[in-house]
Amino acid sequence: MQNDFVLDSAPLRVAGARAAIPRMQEVLAQFRKCRLPVFHVVRVHRQDGSDVEIIRQELFRSQPFAVEGTKGAAVIDELTPRSGEYIIRKTRMSAFIGTELDLILRTLGVTLLVVCGIQTPNCVRTTVFDAIAYNYPVCLVEDAVGAKTPEIHRANVLDMQNIGVRILKTAEVPGFLDVLGAENR
Amino acid sequence: MQNDFVLDSAPLRVAGARAAIPRMQEVLAQFRKCRLPVFHVVRVHRQDGSDVEIIRQELFRSQPFAVEGTKGAAVIDELTPRSGEYIIRKTRMSAFIGTELDLILRTLGVTLLVVCGIQTPNCVRTTVFDAIAYNYPVCLVEDAVGAKTPEIHRANVLDMQNIGVRILKTAEVPGFLDVLGAENR
Repeated sequence: MQNDFVLDSAPLRVAGARAAIPRMQEVLAQFRKCRLPVFHVVRVHRQDGSDVEIIRQELFRSQPFAVEGTKGAAVIDELTPRSGEYIIRKTRMSAFIGTELDLILRTLGVTLLVVCGIQTPNCVRTTVFDAIAYNYPVCLVEDAVGAKTPEIHRANVLDMQNIGVRILKTAEVPGFLDVLGAENR
Repeated sequence: MQNDFVLDSAPLRVAGARAAIPRMQEVLAQFRKCRLPVFHVVRVHRQDGSDVEIIRQELFRSQPFAVEGTKGAAVIDELTPRSGEYIIRKTRMSAFIGTELDLILRTLGVTLLVVCGIQTPNCVRTTVFDAIAYNYPVCLVEDAVGAKTPEIHRANVLDMQNIGVRILKTAEVPGFLDVLGAENR
């Protein structure tokens, strides 16, 4: 959830991003309350764009995005990371490609991921499918995830549900975490 | 395109697989005619299922699939690999995860992938998105790809088109390969 993909003035704004922010804040508050590890996944590129996917480099040249050190690359104010939370920097859609995410999750003994963010068909979905491949069960908080259109969002949620991803609403997260907590006590 | 996911009698049959076989045969014939490298990507599991994704192990125990050495794991007769073609064995949806695919493609100097097969939201799409992440431009032959339903198929083709995947019909493949061949001569 970075300014370049969320702010109303951002050229690469994802249309469904803003509406989902209050739900993301609720999920984040729940995780903080339960002292569960929080990962902020951000796309960050070098200024020259040499680390952008080849098929996106033309786009980057005409409209740079998520450039290291710019305000556009920063997490939106509403979801500012707190000290002790993990920032995962990536240059691809999936948070697992070329990052330390898997290694940190293993080190922490994490056995389940809860995913929010944008956008459903790209960064969210590639991360979810890679998580499944790496053997982390996944819950997707469907109303805390946004896409360009509601149709694209729904089609992707269905595909994820079909491979075994658990689909939750934000309102169900507290109860879900309570049950998990009780099981682990 | 393995018997366990295609044959009418297969419990894990993908509904849209059979109808796309003639188109896959056409694409395959074109690649053979042009002497282009062909990769048959197959899911193959140990008999005990210990290499299956954790969230699918229950399914595997009740209904084993793609077990090493069985007829179900073999490529369907209509698309039998020929000597000299590459067989990529995998245990996950993406053909890139835990396989030698990327290394072989680099060694061959491959700069573009043309993708057919099943099924659109899972093995096809994860492979396509990973290819983009690894900097291989991708063409998807949309009528040589199948899914459970036409709606799921179409929604996934749209998402792939939106990230820059080139969408072709089988009938366009010969002309496309001609142009590529001319550019490389």
